[in-house]
Amino acid sequence: MDLETYLRKTATEVNTLLDQYYGNPGTELSKASNHLLFAGGKRLRPALFKLAADTIRSGSSAGILPAGLALEVTHNFTLIHDDIMDGDATRRGKPTVHTLWGEPAAILAGDVLFARSFCLVADAIAPDAAKVEASALLAKTCVEICEGQQLDMTFETRQDVSRDEYLDMVTKKTGVLYGAAAAMGALLAGATRPQIDALYIYGCSIGAAFQIQDDIIDLMAPPEQSGKDQASDIREGKQTIIAITAREKGVDLSPYRRKLEPVEIKELIGLLQEKEVISEVQATADNMVRDAINGLSVLRECPERQLLSDLAYFFVQRGY
Amino acid sequence: MDLETYLRKTATEVNTLLDQYYGNPGTELSKASNHLLFAGGKRLRPALFKLAADTIRSGSSAGILPAGLALEVTHNFTLIHDDIMDGDATRRGKPTVHTLWGEPAAILAGDVLFARSFCLVADAIAPDAAKVEASALLAKTCVEICEGQQLDMTFETRQDVSRDEYLDMVTKKTGVLYGAAAAMGALLAGATRPQIDALYIYGCSIGAAFQIQDDIIDLMAPPEQSGKDQASDIREGKQTIIAITAREKGVDLSPYRRKLEPVEIKELIGLLQEKEVISEVQATADNMVRDAINGLSVLRECPERQLLSDLAYFFVQRGY
Repeated sequence: MDLETYLRKTATEVNTLLDQYYGNPGTELSKASNHLLFAGGKRLRPALFKLAADTIRSGSSAGILPAGLALEVTHNFTLIHDDIMDGDATRRGKPTVHTLWGEPAAILAGDVLFARSFCLVADAIAPDAAKVEASALLAKTCVEICEGQQLDMTFETRQDVSRDEYLDMVTKKTGVLYGAAAAMGALLAGATRPQIDALYIYGCSIGAAFQIQDDIIDLMAPPEQSGKDQASDIREGKQTIIAITAREKGVDLSPYRRKLEPVEIKELIGLLQEKEVISEVQATADNMVRDAINGLSVLRECPERQLLSDLAYFFVQRGY
Repeated sequence: MDLETYLRKTATEVNTLLDQYYGNPGTELSKASNHLLFAGGKRLRPALFKLAADTIRSGSSAGILPAGLALEVTHNFTLIHDDIMDGDATRRGKPTVHTLWGEPAAILAGDVLFARSFCLVADAIAPDAAKVEASALLAKTCVEICEGQQLDMTFETRQDVSRDEYLDMVTKKTGVLYGAAAAMGALLAGATRPQIDALYIYGCSIGAAFQIQDDIIDLMAPPEQSGKDQASDIREGKQTIIAITAREKGVDLSPYRRKLEPVEIKELIGLLQEKEVISEVQATADNMVRDAINGLSVLRECPERQLLSDLAYFFVQRGY
């Protein structure tokens, strides 16, 4: 099965399970909690969870899928709270939860999803010791995600963020939940410690690479392709890895901190290509992915391990 | 040991453990998370957790105390988020987290405490099966607390809240976390299902009774005793059990929905006493506590069980 087919199949499975669990929202608060969760999404974290489990032991993901769902539910909890903090009005093409229900209910809606995640881990059919460890890993991961979001907000007030600080931030904000997805799938499937560790590092790395690719896409993808504002990060003076690499190479981006015409964006991209900023950033992401894949060598060779490789490449090769 | 001594001793133990876990906050976000947690509080939930555990098996609370701390940490998480929603500027005599760090960081600070709670449950020295169940119970409880807070906010826009709706709200907002405290202590100590159930119901009941007593205190306690504004609930037209009982008995409180002079508050109390509103509300709380204590008869007789009785009476006999 190719990756695209696998992801589509998993998304359907995840949506079916979501519907079984939360398809009948009783209260208005349940509706608010469900809003974003039922608004689509690629369901990449449950897919990674499944691949990790099935790489350890073929077919093992079936009984533990609720714990895979926990990762999607946790992800949506963080999005609801992030949207409040960032004051974002839309997500996945729909009004955000706080736009529809107000901030107090949106805070609670996120809290409810957070709580549901731990109920879901408990629902997995797996040894209790593994469930305790999975639950603790998910909790520790959530603390790190919060730290990542806090760092991201702090960076908005700074112009001197270093490469290491940036990598720490994206690893916490995006990487660790992918790391937890892979590690939880593995440990609930009965993996050994080296296998769990390899998958955790793999997940953290491809998640961070995903975020770097996001920064590249913001600059490079034409709005008609991405549906987003092109080069908005540069316009806002955001401390992305592109801005940091440009600074390291003595490229002054301050003339571009304003509304840019398409021809100016082209000129900016030309400048960043000439100074090898973009190629270096791309190489950073590519190297992370390559190292992540190499780390999988402790796992048995099987179709799922191949799909883990494909998934890693997909994270840095998507154009938008 | 009398209850007062026991509670003081437990508070010291809890504060020591808090300090061991979180005494060295690394990040600014950790400081925000710690702020309220280290600002005091009676630590009633860990005390209840300990009493439940030790009633099941003498001395069993020692190894599982981190899970007892989880209840205090969860309680503080809900307070931080509630204070944002309610726009409250002070709590425990100190500025609230969002007043000091802003709302985005306060949302995250609450989320961090929520996550820490599940790490703490995993840290208890107990059978894994019991830890999985305790974790799931805590998660389910958090969903209900959110529903309780949402109901409480909804009630502010209504004047026709029924007695049953009120009792459902206070049970969710306050009762279930006491229920979880008692049940988690018991189940981690190896209790039987009937013992766990009895302690859960006991906790829910005394927690709800605590909230009813709060309503009585708001009306009755002179500000020099309580440190709070007397009769503020009536002034704000809040749907407390006093307002609901008054409505049931045909007492019109609308003339009192304004700033009241001390003499008017005295007149109001006189009216509510004459119409037997206060005595009926007090009887509701007293009956809940009596039933809760009767339910403990499935437990062995021991000093801790006596303290559980005393704690229940303390909840409805405190004057402020």
